[in-house]
Amino acid sequence: MAYRTLEERFKRLSDIGGALAMLEWDHQVMMPRGANETRAEQVATLRQMAHELLTDERTGGWLDEAEAEAAQLDHWQRANLREMRRSHVRAVALDPALVAALARATARAEMAWRDARANADFGALAPALAEVVRLSREEAAAKAKALDLAPYDALLDGYEPGLRMAQIDALLEPLGSVLPDFLEQVLARQKASLPIEGPFDSVLQMGLGRSLMAQMGFDFERGRLDESAHPFCGGVPDDIRLTARYEAADVTSGLMAILHETGHALYSAGLPKAWRHQPVGEARGMAVHESQSLLIEMQVCRSPAFLGYLAPLLAATFGRDDPVLSAENLYRRAIHVARGFIRVDADEVTYPLHVILRYRLEKAMAAGDLEVADLPGAWNEGMRELLGLTPPDDRLGCLQDIHWSVGAIGYFPCYTLGAMMAAQLFEAASAAEPDILPSVGRGDFRPLLGWLRANIHEQGSLLDMPELLTRATGRPLELQPFLDHLRARYLA
Amino acid sequence: MAYRTLEERFKRLSDIGGALAMLEWDHQVMMPRGANETRAEQVATLRQMAHELLTDERTGGWLDEAEAEAAQLDHWQRANLREMRRSHVRAVALDPALVAALARATARAEMAWRDARANADFGALAPALAEVVRLSREEAAAKAKALDLAPYDALLDGYEPGLRMAQIDALLEPLGSVLPDFLEQVLARQKASLPIEGPFDSVLQMGLGRSLMAQMGFDFERGRLDESAHPFCGGVPDDIRLTARYEAADVTSGLMAILHETGHALYSAGLPKAWRHQPVGEARGMAVHESQSLLIEMQVCRSPAFLGYLAPLLAATFGRDDPVLSAENLYRRAIHVARGFIRVDADEVTYPLHVILRYRLEKAMAAGDLEVADLPGAWNEGMRELLGLTPPDDRLGCLQDIHWSVGAIGYFPCYTLGAMMAAQLFEAASAAEPDILPSVGRGDFRPLLGWLRANIHEQGSLLDMPELLTRATGRPLELQPFLDHLRARYLA
Repeated sequence: MAYRTLEERFKRLSDIGGALAMLEWDHQVMMPRGANETRAEQVATLRQMAHELLTDERTGGWLDEAEAEAAQLDHWQRANLREMRRSHVRAVALDPALVAALARATARAEMAWRDARANADFGALAPALAEVVRLSREEAAAKAKALDLAPYDALLDGYEPGLRMAQIDALLEPLGSVLPDFLEQVLARQKASLPIEGPFDSVLQMGLGRSLMAQMGFDFERGRLDESAHPFCGGVPDDIRLTARYEAADVTSGLMAILHETGHALYSAGLPKAWRHQPVGEARGMAVHESQSLLIEMQVCRSPAFLGYLAPLLAATFGRDDPVLSAENLYRRAIHVARGFIRVDADEVTYPLHVILRYRLEKAMAAGDLEVADLPGAWNEGMRELLGLTPPDDRLGCLQDIHWSVGAIGYFPCYTLGAMMAAQLFEAASAAEPDILPSVGRGDFRPLLGWLRANIHEQGSLLDMPELLTRATGRPLELQPFLDHLRARYLA
Repeated sequence: MAYRTLEERFKRLSDIGGALAMLEWDHQVMMPRGANETRAEQVATLRQMAHELLTDERTGGWLDEAEAEAAQLDHWQRANLREMRRSHVRAVALDPALVAALARATARAEMAWRDARANADFGALAPALAEVVRLSREEAAAKAKALDLAPYDALLDGYEPGLRMAQIDALLEPLGSVLPDFLEQVLARQKASLPIEGPFDSVLQMGLGRSLMAQMGFDFERGRLDESAHPFCGGVPDDIRLTARYEAADVTSGLMAILHETGHALYSAGLPKAWRHQPVGEARGMAVHESQSLLIEMQVCRSPAFLGYLAPLLAATFGRDDPVLSAENLYRRAIHVARGFIRVDADEVTYPLHVILRYRLEKAMAAGDLEVADLPGAWNEGMRELLGLTPPDDRLGCLQDIHWSVGAIGYFPCYTLGAMMAAQLFEAASAAEPDILPSVGRGDFRPLLGWLRANIHEQGSLLDMPELLTRATGRPLELQPFLDHLRARYLA
């Protein structure tokens, strides 16, 4: 039966993907610098072998056969077959010469970006970035044709299946017109907080982080916590590799990052066990993934309930009975809002403005309406309109993110779609299980995790994102829950 | 040109091998227990893909073509082609059904061995081990036919190409008849030493280990030092992963293990850079590898010269001005000899007796002259003859080693052949560069490393082991230098 053969092939692809995930974690956390070249070769070879397996002519034949016999398959198997076809169509859509050209161009642009950013010299990146944008347009056109989508939609769909520009426009444009005024109100009304002063011992920070992770449901028999320059959550569902960075001056910075990554980790760990190593058993998409980290970080862990639980733990861990670490001061700091140039440093209110800027610009670049040479001007204009700031140089402007240089066009909206999804999911979860937030206040995350497991994690890739949201919350993704959340938290 | 195509294919195999080496290191050092099953799947898939690439019919065709065009190849390319053919012949010699049966049988026996050893219950291992031995005989027969070798020689050749039973017999049998008397003399004459008493801080132990590694030429830009239950040297030449274990009670135990593994590491790092990722660029064999670790540990680091250099470092590191850590006491302890049951705890004098026992037994098992049921009796009889000891149970007897359970028959001789090679190489090196040992006494390992690089490391797999030894020392492997070394060190 062709379907079974496909399951074996995709199991193999999953094993290769798992090996690659471990090599990537090792690269970020363990690998000595001099191994860069050797590691790049290993990774390139495994990726190429996976690509060959996926695009092999026989894979296409088995897909045709299996689809013809789909009536014999159950619900999950049919969804698995659909996801297999999705990967295959996307992989064969691109000419191998284009794949190779993209790999070369993004490698060059990534290197150029590092220097250009360090020197605030956009001119040093522009030619390499222009080449990436040119090839990404070709990529978008080829995928658009194969998937019968608009070009930018074809790119979006690669990060979050089912996500379309029309849906994003309908959510981000109203948000973009509301937020600047909202931001003014918040800035005028927010209360001052006491500054947190270190030093906070990093070993104690790690211990507290581990203990909170365990309490939230992270299984240290199937995962680790280590350190890296940029916190991330990697690995595979049964071997999750989470990393943190500890700031001696402010314990909350490293801790909130751990809690954020724990949201990703709980999603991975909760994916359907019966479908491990098959496409339908994988996480839905990047927006849904981000919804899980932001639900934990923003909805849950920046709430007064959680911070009321955390405050005495902080005092006990660091032996400090200090009003700076009181629940109220922690909360004021957790919801502190400020205009700034840098997306990754932004708070919950201003973050979407950074994303809206990038969304508008990348759509225009993908469509050919904006050329790379005009990017710095368009960026600064957008910053003035959305945030009222003019970057003093491109390092604090259009050179701050790596995404476009590595060809990730269509990714940025996932951050804010994830934030909206988090608000809508948490609203639905709290309505269904009113004890969720009170339990969090007692350090009991089981009611929360139970709802997320059943409604999101265990769904894997059974449904596309709009359908997943509708099943979980009774309606498709809307802006209102996110706005309600922002009003309740920042203007109450 | 078929040869170029083969280089590409073997480059791919090397990348897969490198990825596997990293996964293996991670398994031993980092991986959480619950990831066992997932990791086993990843490893099995990568191994299978490598096996498929190697045994692919086209590989055989390209080998034929390349051999027909071999006149166009240079010296190293021809050796590379010979090594490619070697791997291919060995891989295709086995029926895939036998490969699969061996994988299953060794996995079962390895699990059974863990329990059997813990409970000193040979009966719990016997059926699984009998199956491994039965299949290993089939493996030996099939490889013998393909390689035109005797069956046990075909197994030996898998660990150290060119190594033959006749050569081992000619070396180990005389050694086995000399050593028991020699041991008596050493035991009667050796001087008492002061016992080392801890605690030695493990962070300081690690710091000292790192600093010695660096001084010996280990490049921490291309490798790491970590901890694991059993010290080993893994990874790939540009990303060497060395591990250690620190005993609080005795700093010399962990340190000697680090120095031993550093010998392996220097060999890997020194392999010919122009042939990275090709078979001819790999380490020669396991006996040669062991010669490099034993040369560093036994010939160099247990010498009075090195210990004279180490003693003040130990005193300074641990802030102890103590006769226990004097060069003389360290030397007495470094060359302390004792009869014991356990091979891995054995000293330089008794170690070969443990190997001779295993060599005799595994030859007999491979030939069908010894059945698994009779192993405990034969083991204990051999122990009495060679070491004058009777193991009180099989945990201290024939259950102590994992090798046979995982199908590694033909490996044990490499340990003692390596020790002999180390003695012969060090004798030749010291004759050629008389400053080697005096330099070591000043903490300068460059003359030693220079000789090893030129004569062993940079030779990769250009020559077979007998030829490598002859080129480096002027003659094939002999027993005499090892006996001279033992006499000079233990009876002087």
